Amino acid sequence: MQAMFDVIAFDADDTLWHNETLYSMTQDRFKQLLSRYRDTDRIDHELYETEMRNLQHYGYGIKAFTLSMIETAIELTDAQIQGREIREIIGFAREMLKAPVRLLEGVQEVIHTLSASHQLMIITKGDLFDQESKIARSGLADYFSQVEIVSHKTEDTYKALLAQHHMRPDRFLMVGNSLKSDILPVLAVGGQAVYIPYHLTWAHEVVTAPHENRPGYFELEHIGQLPALLEKLIRN
Amino acid sequence: MQAMFDVIAFDADDTLWHNETLYSMTQDRFKQLLSRYRDTDRIDHELYETEMRNLQHYGYGIKAFTLSMIETAIELTDAQIQGREIREIIGFAREMLKAPVRLLEGVQEVIHTLSASHQLMIITKGDLFDQESKIARSGLADYFSQVEIVSHKTEDTYKALLAQHHMRPDRFLMVGNSLKSDILPVLAVGGQAVYIPYHLTWAHEVVTAPHENRPGYFELEHIGQLPALLEKLIRN
Repeated sequence: MQAMFDVIAFDADDTLWHNETLYSMTQDRFKQLLSRYRDTDRIDHELYETEMRNLQHYGYGIKAFTLSMIETAIELTDAQIQGREIREIIGFAREMLKAPVRLLEGVQEVIHTLSASHQLMIITKGDLFDQESKIARSGLADYFSQVEIVSHKTEDTYKALLAQHHMRPDRFLMVGNSLKSDILPVLAVGGQAVYIPYHLTWAHEVVTAPHENRPGYFELEHIGQLPALLEKLIRN
Repeated sequence: MQAMFDVIAFDADDTLWHNETLYSMTQDRFKQLLSRYRDTDRIDHELYETEMRNLQHYGYGIKAFTLSMIETAIELTDAQIQGREIREIIGFAREMLKAPVRLLEGVQEVIHTLSASHQLMIITKGDLFDQESKIARSGLADYFSQVEIVSHKTEDTYKALLAQHHMRPDRFLMVGNSLKSDILPVLAVGGQAVYIPYHLTWAHEVVTAPHENRPGYFELEHIGQLPALLEKLIRN
């Protein structure tokens, strides 16, 4: 296959493996734990507010989420929360950090196939330690020539990465499940991008999709369709 | 000045700015908070044990330290710790994250001077979000052509960084305060290293110094002596 792109970069969480489901399941357990103090809508709301307020201090990831859960539990119970309940929240964190990395359907085959014809890269946002651990546990690490773990995914982030790796924007393709982090900033710096929605999206990442006719923008239902899209782009 | 090194890389925490003092001060406040439950030696011991146990799950940094403080507080009090006390611990974390970055004496001048003749780099271990924030707040960011935030500093880490940045080991100099992280692995991969001890060292980082005559190994009392050392190396 004559490659149209020098580099294909993939987001990791909810693009290569399930992630938001883990947060969502943990949040359900958190609500259950606090259900004797407050109703669940109120808990959801307060946790989200706390997370947003803490984002500038903590960044993303499981440790940040856990500290926000503990803070929310204290505030929602007027500090009546018990030590043994906080211990349970810390237990949630430990389970999340040790949870098996579950690849999305088709990921293994697609990454294997594309690695024969393209240089592959991971560009993921989040906690350095946690992301490195997941990449190692995913079994996919050897397919990627570069792994970049960044604290934000903005236009400036992509500009810096393109420069650092000597990548031409028009020969750079980003694949991901977040319009806000993986798609819009890449299109803005002249790259191309494939949006593959995940069935859950964290409220913080929700933005409006580009018009489907926008050049360089593609949307797929699942990653298994990616090789066919690439072949079609070459033929056109 | 005819440079002997292509790149001079600096550790950040306790090499460019004070860090361990912040942890140490916070740990004193933590002990004060728990003093009505336990004696302080026991608290120190338990906190260190908890941190070591959690290192493989959490990695380094303030969020990891905070989660370990909360866990220690629960375990040491048989879960009798109060919600308002856990709230105080979270307050410690927030103060640490917002604490001003205090440069070590002489750092500003030395970095300014060396940047005229050398490519400078930061190689620091820790929490991505927190380290980026400190580099930005330090006012030094523009002096460094590369910033690498890594989760560990082992021989493999340095090998990978040398390869990635096309740096010759024998023309690479690392400057840092941790023998374990900044000095020994760099010497092991053929680089040179300047050890500048900080007045506090986290117990986890304590190892034995190389023999002072070991080629490529230098020890200074403070960073202000670094330009003179570099000039002396060129003359010899």
